[in-house]
Amino acid sequence: MRIAVLGTGEVGRRLGSKLVSLGHEVTLGSRSADHAGAKEWAAEHRSAHGTFAAAASGAELVVNATGGLVSLAALEAAGAENLDGKVLVDVSNALDFSQGVPPRVAQPEGGSVAEEIQRAFPGARVVKTLNTMTNTVMVDPGRVPGAHVVFVCGNDAEAKAVVTDLLKSFGWPADRILDLGDLAGARATELVLPLWLRLMGTFGTAEFNFAVPKA
Amino acid sequence: MRIAVLGTGEVGRRLGSKLVSLGHEVTLGSRSADHAGAKEWAAEHRSAHGTFAAAASGAELVVNATGGLVSLAALEAAGAENLDGKVLVDVSNALDFSQGVPPRVAQPEGGSVAEEIQRAFPGARVVKTLNTMTNTVMVDPGRVPGAHVVFVCGNDAEAKAVVTDLLKSFGWPADRILDLGDLAGARATELVLPLWLRLMGTFGTAEFNFAVPKA
Repeated sequence: MRIAVLGTGEVGRRLGSKLVSLGHEVTLGSRSADHAGAKEWAAEHRSAHGTFAAAASGAELVVNATGGLVSLAALEAAGAENLDGKVLVDVSNALDFSQGVPPRVAQPEGGSVAEEIQRAFPGARVVKTLNTMTNTVMVDPGRVPGAHVVFVCGNDAEAKAVVTDLLKSFGWPADRILDLGDLAGARATELVLPLWLRLMGTFGTAEFNFAVPKA
Repeated sequence: MRIAVLGTGEVGRRLGSKLVSLGHEVTLGSRSADHAGAKEWAAEHRSAHGTFAAAASGAELVVNATGGLVSLAALEAAGAENLDGKVLVDVSNALDFSQGVPPRVAQPEGGSVAEEIQRAFPGARVVKTLNTMTNTVMVDPGRVPGAHVVFVCGNDAEAKAVVTDLLKSFGWPADRILDLGDLAGARATELVLPLWLRLMGTFGTAEFNFAVPKA
């Protein structure tokens, strides 16, 4: 697939690299056309980089890997016409570092970042996933032992099916991909971040994940 | 120990029953002295019941098993002098059923219900725990397979040690009791409830719990 990964931080670069290794045509998108880190990543992965709009316009599927607090602005720059009809995978968290570390988790007016994105871009097919773990685990679930899980929420069943297939290609077994229903479920998965942050502080590592055994 | 369990719902009665079975002297506390359900529970368990104040005054340790939205009022009725110096185990969640089911999870001004309790009753030694699972699993962790966990947060290390011992007596292995640090950690554990509710909806059962495997 032709995929735009918006966001040049660790998450964007990790997801971009994984998608390239799986044979997808990836463009890393950033605020400007000559972002140094994006340029470097693109050279290293024999891939493309560009503005949010340039990346999104050529893509069939878009990944929002920008910080949750700036995602709406980034996607506005990408342009609604470049998101219409496309699966938009939202992996963001609304982390507020303005008061230092650990960051606070902002609670958007619209319930969740994902729902605010869906409301702002009604033509996009937003699917929330992968925001409940560190980036190394997203693309290599085997790094953490046990039957830990990834959550998927969205209003469009076909979009969720596309994302589920992508997750399987990352190594997630089908029975560890938990469909939590509609996009309002993103409130639940975004609100898990304070616990994730506390656990990271307690464990001294980010390489853990949630499992949900049941009787 | 002489223990007051405040709250006559399923959680209070389940915890009360477990504590009685372990040999503790338990008084179930409710808003009034002649609560029918409390009276019935007390008769069945050859234990006592009374008002919040009566229960708390005779106890060495107090469990807040009232709904998170009414906990401050219940504890005010219990009386600060009856909570001073005592370990106060807060198992509540701020669940708002006013808009139907599933309930919303209210986000207290003071960060968490636990911190609001600690601020209102500075002499009490508040420990947050057990609010991230259904009541049957609280007192019988073996109901759910796997290395699922219970979280403990509080500002008083000795109070946390007392609560940890209680949890062990419920069947929680030491390495599955996760101390998340100070009471601000209660924000994290209280905010996990939206995910818990979504999972209950998805699974069709409340008999599950969180595990946190790490690399």
